[in-house]
Amino acid sequence: MNLIILTEADLIGDHRYRLTDNRAEHIRAILRLSVGDTVQVGMLNGPVGEARVERLDDAEVILVGEKFEDIPDPIPTIDLICALPRPQTLRKVLITSATMGIRNIHLIRANRVEKSYFHSPLLTPDKWTPYLIEGLSQGKLTRLPRVEIHERFRNFFEDTFAELEQSEEMASTKLLPHPEAANAINRIYDGQSPRLVLAVGPEGGWVPFEVELMTSLGFKPFKLGPWVLRVETAVTAALAQIELTRMQSS
Amino acid sequence: MNLIILTEADLIGDHRYRLTDNRAEHIRAILRLSVGDTVQVGMLNGPVGEARVERLDDAEVILVGEKFEDIPDPIPTIDLICALPRPQTLRKVLITSATMGIRNIHLIRANRVEKSYFHSPLLTPDKWTPYLIEGLSQGKLTRLPRVEIHERFRNFFEDTFAELEQSEEMASTKLLPHPEAANAINRIYDGQSPRLVLAVGPEGGWVPFEVELMTSLGFKPFKLGPWVLRVETAVTAALAQIELTRMQSS
Repeated sequence: MNLIILTEADLIGDHRYRLTDNRAEHIRAILRLSVGDTVQVGMLNGPVGEARVERLDDAEVILVGEKFEDIPDPIPTIDLICALPRPQTLRKVLITSATMGIRNIHLIRANRVEKSYFHSPLLTPDKWTPYLIEGLSQGKLTRLPRVEIHERFRNFFEDTFAELEQSEEMASTKLLPHPEAANAINRIYDGQSPRLVLAVGPEGGWVPFEVELMTSLGFKPFKLGPWVLRVETAVTAALAQIELTRMQSS
Repeated sequence: MNLIILTEADLIGDHRYRLTDNRAEHIRAILRLSVGDTVQVGMLNGPVGEARVERLDDAEVILVGEKFEDIPDPIPTIDLICALPRPQTLRKVLITSATMGIRNIHLIRANRVEKSYFHSPLLTPDKWTPYLIEGLSQGKLTRLPRVEIHERFRNFFEDTFAELEQSEEMASTKLLPHPEAANAINRIYDGQSPRLVLAVGPEGGWVPFEVELMTSLGFKPFKLGPWVLRVETAVTAALAQIELTRMQSS
């Protein structure tokens, strides 16, 4: 927990925040703070700043927010389209995505996605938000990624995604890691575009129809490497290569 | 489980392998194979091939190995030096390292490593090997990474590492991801060297003394990106950037 994330729900008035959950435990047991100490905090979807410990006991920690300043997000706007993985993998995808600054996460159906995954209890904001906050807290970020569920592959790409593209809510560089692609990412992405969409397939990969539909919409396949990776690892590897390409071009 | 890894301990004679653990369960419940079907298998530290299901019931699966062929490992020789993380993180580092083809893993002490981590029951071959095999199975690889534990930072670098370097068991390109580094990896690594050592620090990072000692031994700092990553995520991100640099140079 590199940043204690505070939300409106924690506010008890007059810049005071009352924590009773794992954040309080972290402040007591890991950071071992005392009354009067300060700690780095971030307002969910808001600025980063410092808070002072006003009260601390076994039941609660009261923080007083101080010295907040809006910091520009250093990370480019990346949206992730991810074939819905099994719940234990999805948790890791949510955490990693938040840590690495993903803006929107579209979880979609694909041929190799089991239908039952869409019935996971994890697929409600109440259940997925804690994993996103865990990721933000690790990455010292405060912007909560938006998560959307799309139960039909073709509908998503032909309607929803097309509309998002038209409304310019979505990035213009569309990247598709694919084991059979010939090119490395730097051959298909110049590192300049500040807006990207990354589409990561299911265990076992996309089927040819899916790849064809995505490439027809402008997604460019690239080769991530020689490995067979888990979904959350593929997300990290792709984001690391996007960032390297950006650093190289600047 | 993309590859069923077989070991000498599974052999019951005449190319027959008896499985009773999660591999048998995977063959029954996920792959849903029947007698006569074939499945991709890999011999631990050996070739990849096919096996035929000879017997399958609730208690066991008997496979007959067929058509083994040695395949060249497509992955460069990378050794990982990693400040020993907490056990739950170490498990992920072991899995990821095996999946991504790491050769040797040196788990070392560092200033920000808690001494208690060295008393983890995970730190014996019996306990860590299953995580490595899980990673190999995901990555369709068969070479078991070697794991070594080094309880003293300075001793490791000044004695053990120096000897490994001299015996040419270790790579000559030594990479050190560091948040304050100015250069991206492509400025300090030409993508040509087939042997690398990657040194990944603890939560909270290396202390200045450690960075100085490593750079004096030829480790080159580079900037991975703008993120604050967990250890296992940093390993993945660094390996992804090493691979991109290699693809770009070829």
